Amino acid sequence: MRATIIHGAGDIRVENVPDPHLREPTDALVRVVQACICGSDLWPYRSMPRSEAGERIGHEFLGIVEDLGPEVSGFRKGDLVVAPFVWADNTCDFCSEGLQTSCRHGGLWASDGIDGGQGEAVRVPQAQGTLVRLPVAEDSALLPSLLSLSDVFPTGYHCAHTAGVNPRTTVTVIGDGAVGLSAVLAAKRLGAERIILMGHHKGRTDLGVEFGATDVIAERGEEGVEKVRDLTGGDGTHAVLECVGLLPAIEAAFAVVRDGGVVSRVGAPQYPAVPMDFSVFMGNVTLTGGVAPARAYIEELLPDILEGRIEPGKVFDRSVDLDDVADGYRAMAAREALKVIVRP
Amino acid sequence: MRATIIHGAGDIRVENVPDPHLREPTDALVRVVQACICGSDLWPYRSMPRSEAGERIGHEFLGIVEDLGPEVSGFRKGDLVVAPFVWADNTCDFCSEGLQTSCRHGGLWASDGIDGGQGEAVRVPQAQGTLVRLPVAEDSALLPSLLSLSDVFPTGYHCAHTAGVNPRTTVTVIGDGAVGLSAVLAAKRLGAERIILMGHHKGRTDLGVEFGATDVIAERGEEGVEKVRDLTGGDGTHAVLECVGLLPAIEAAFAVVRDGGVVSRVGAPQYPAVPMDFSVFMGNVTLTGGVAPARAYIEELLPDILEGRIEPGKVFDRSVDLDDVADGYRAMAAREALKVIVRP
Repeated sequence: MRATIIHGAGDIRVENVPDPHLREPTDALVRVVQACICGSDLWPYRSMPRSEAGERIGHEFLGIVEDLGPEVSGFRKGDLVVAPFVWADNTCDFCSEGLQTSCRHGGLWASDGIDGGQGEAVRVPQAQGTLVRLPVAEDSALLPSLLSLSDVFPTGYHCAHTAGVNPRTTVTVIGDGAVGLSAVLAAKRLGAERIILMGHHKGRTDLGVEFGATDVIAERGEEGVEKVRDLTGGDGTHAVLECVGLLPAIEAAFAVVRDGGVVSRVGAPQYPAVPMDFSVFMGNVTLTGGVAPARAYIEELLPDILEGRIEPGKVFDRSVDLDDVADGYRAMAAREALKVIVRP
Repeated sequence: MRATIIHGAGDIRVENVPDPHLREPTDALVRVVQACICGSDLWPYRSMPRSEAGERIGHEFLGIVEDLGPEVSGFRKGDLVVAPFVWADNTCDFCSEGLQTSCRHGGLWASDGIDGGQGEAVRVPQAQGTLVRLPVAEDSALLPSLLSLSDVFPTGYHCAHTAGVNPRTTVTVIGDGAVGLSAVLAAKRLGAERIILMGHHKGRTDLGVEFGATDVIAERGEEGVEKVRDLTGGDGTHAVLECVGLLPAIEAAFAVVRDGGVVSRVGAPQYPAVPMDFSVFMGNVTLTGGVAPARAYIEELLPDILEGRIEPGKVFDRSVDLDDVADGYRAMAAREALKVIVRP
């Protein structure tokens, strides 16, 4: 089959790889209908050292079950399913606590002999725990929103959820990427009435407003911080959702959080230490978040998508065939595209 | 009156200062019966630049109400009262949320013209919100435990409370100082059944065991971390209570916390940034805590002391007259004494 291989920074290729097949009785085989490119895929796209052999890439996909191991129940061949971006048994103690990203028998896609999502098919380990059945047809118009359940929307939701967003919390979202916009949508769904979005790409913040942002702050750095302070009587907001992962973003987060408030971060951190001056301690500010256990949220979020109450798939603004996946990476890295669907 | 003045590192003196008197209608005048020395008083004791004028010091005291401003109700002259280590109106929005340390009309003792606690008397601003009446006589044997309500016990309690300690959480306490031991007692009170105390002063960890620690780890650094891992099947504990404030302590905290767990810190941080490698993000570890709003906990903790269920005052192992306060500092800094009561 064909699959996406990254050979180094800027070097994305589609190559022939061995067809996947069932290996363990807990496996399923899924033919990919839609995959997509993640902001975190752009980190290796920007910095990976050159590799002759290359590595599989991609961790977001939905598709059709083509084969099932004997220990996988609850699914049938032909089911449309979505996979979260970490596979997990969904039964261990961590999974039972809703922390499938720490599953004792789980792992990451596209590493250690596991297929990546940006290809024609995927062998899914721990399939019964990993996959969630989607009760729609393969050609449903809901597919982009359902695909967003694999990572980007639950990641934004995890950010808002761990920050404790509720109808009484004011919220600042830092970052107008697909995760930031998903965090806006999540905060709105959790009842927040004041959602301040910090971002300076007009087309993206417009979608943020559609998703529920009540204020948009285009200024960066100190100027942007001042604006949030101005909007909140000098106090900052109860929750700050940091959806970037870079040092200036986490610094801004601590500068706009209200005393007693929470900074939640879901952008993979590209810094080794979090600067926290004494005011963070005196203000009793909490830092939470982390890699999102998407699996924990899929069943909760699914009905809202199926019944049309939310449309997180609006973060996808481009679609490419698998053969053109390199152009999808290029467009996202150049900020021409917000988030790109890949169709095998 | 006489009060303690710090003139620089190692230079504690008792000097005559102007007698306090009511200035605002919201003030009270309190004659100090017992004060004490805090671990945080040792930071300036170790590092304060020399100052001719010197500065007041001390923020923990209980005493007798001697005078009351016209806007202070609920107290009478002669009442025994305890003051938390931050004064506050106890009515603003932050106070109502239990964050009296961020009170809009509050502040610190021993600064900006406010008396320190280590003296004969104190003018108490926002007295109605700040003070809590103690229904015992001035010579009660409960006084040390009641004095602990001003800071050290609520600080340990804040650490355990913000870490979410409950009967289902395993706990590691880092530090066998008075705050660490108070955190052990707090974790026990909140129902924790497994409390691992990291500390290497036998006399102190013995009190920790009396307070509820189930395991004591005397090893430091990587060796201590390994021990906690060994005791918890490799996982670490749900809650880690960091009661030191130094970089190695917060580093150890992240090394012994379970995925999805919480590190809470109440030791005034002596570091400008918190090292967090990628595993903290992947493990969804939360960092919380901060300066303890002692006032928020006093009424909750008071009955347990009055009825003899807990005796947090056991952290006091020495008592000095005000004139000998310098020796109290010396003894605490030399670790001869765990925590010292000062009697004017």
